[in-house]
Amino acid sequence: MTKVTAQMSVSLDGCYTGPRDPQAPTDMSRWMQGPEAPGFFRVTRWAVDAMAWRERQGFAGGEQSADSDIVAETFAAAGAYVMGRRMFDAGEVPWGDEPPFHAPVFVVTHRPRAVLERRGTSFTFVTEGPGRAVELARAAAGDKDVAVAGGGELLRQVLTAGLLDQLELHIAPVLLGDGQRLFDGLGLGADDGVELVPARVVESPGVTHVRYTVTGRSKLVLDDRGASGELVGR
Amino acid sequence: MTKVTAQMSVSLDGCYTGPRDPQAPTDMSRWMQGPEAPGFFRVTRWAVDAMAWRERQGFAGGEQSADSDIVAETFAAAGAYVMGRRMFDAGEVPWGDEPPFHAPVFVVTHRPRAVLERRGTSFTFVTEGPGRAVELARAAAGDKDVAVAGGGELLRQVLTAGLLDQLELHIAPVLLGDGQRLFDGLGLGADDGVELVPARVVESPGVTHVRYTVTGRSKLVLDDRGASGELVGR
Repeated sequence: MTKVTAQMSVSLDGCYTGPRDPQAPTDMSRWMQGPEAPGFFRVTRWAVDAMAWRERQGFAGGEQSADSDIVAETFAAAGAYVMGRRMFDAGEVPWGDEPPFHAPVFVVTHRPRAVLERRGTSFTFVTEGPGRAVELARAAAGDKDVAVAGGGELLRQVLTAGLLDQLELHIAPVLLGDGQRLFDGLGLGADDGVELVPARVVESPGVTHVRYTVTGRSKLVLDDRGASGELVGR
Repeated sequence: MTKVTAQMSVSLDGCYTGPRDPQAPTDMSRWMQGPEAPGFFRVTRWAVDAMAWRERQGFAGGEQSADSDIVAETFAAAGAYVMGRRMFDAGEVPWGDEPPFHAPVFVVTHRPRAVLERRGTSFTFVTEGPGRAVELARAAAGDKDVAVAGGGELLRQVLTAGLLDQLELHIAPVLLGDGQRLFDGLGLGADDGVELVPARVVESPGVTHVRYTVTGRSKLVLDDRGASGELVGR
């Protein structure tokens, strides 16, 4: 059955990129020179070092490793993608003629645009919001999963809309100190949380992969801290 | 050899408690009624459910589990503690006659106070800062480790001062949305990070324990994203 999945590389302090440049909030062409790039490069290095990632980009080399297996598995599981507009804008040129997705991609944007066909990948621009993009991706995914390609903003929207079934974090062992946090601005109530269940952990020297099944909203409650079991006479 | 260690329960979005009450920043007596408690209770529930934690508090019950083994191991490894003043203030009354530390505790504070002796645990108040508290704890720890008992503010100070050798996070599978982040305000430079190395991962149904060895400050750098291995002719 088709699941809606997301996966993201984050630092140990929860950032998926460095901080946004307040001077250039919408210009993605100089993204590589901006403050987001160093943190993004650090947290995603494990993937760039993996053979399966490099193969998808058309690059040789890389390591055959548990990390590479996870990249391969992640690409293989996705029958269609949803993607945020900033990620598309940042990727359109560098991805070139053969973007790494090899599946239909639905880009959530406010700007209508005709379908863009690339070798193996199509980009359809959806102006009716993330829910509609997920719906279209689901119809296109066949028996495979719908994967949230990123960025973080779209992932948060899909999560808080209750549309996400599975989340995998690739936790890079680094503290960035400053950057965009994947889980900032979730807009939950004061005593509300989102519960998940750990489904799989894969250890690797350079990153820890933790996959969660998303349970959903729940109330945070106090407990008696074990005091109901207090030993008499101590 | 004595290591300086810290361990902390955090949510998947990196919070160790709910948000601070801006109305009562220094009054710890009503902490349980404030906004910090629900998040703190949620992220530490795995420990409260563990037999070894309850034993230390003088409570019966709890589960014998991998989580309990980790609690027992954590207590056994610590020969002395350093502790922040807010944590001490919040704990002084609830810990009662026999606090769970069973070792000398060095409390970092601006307020001088005579040593407080409890059954098995002493509290020494150190007004010369975290570095001095670590030094005193090291002298008191014998062959065991110096453990940062918390809270988060002291942990950050010890970490950014380069004094921390090992960090273990107990990652509870919940998003709090709002709260105090363990790694907020590290004050690193724009292209600086703190590197760590995963040393051990223990999976458990309700929490993921990840232990890191702290390597230290490093520069964040860009890379060629694998392009040096580009396949000719593709």
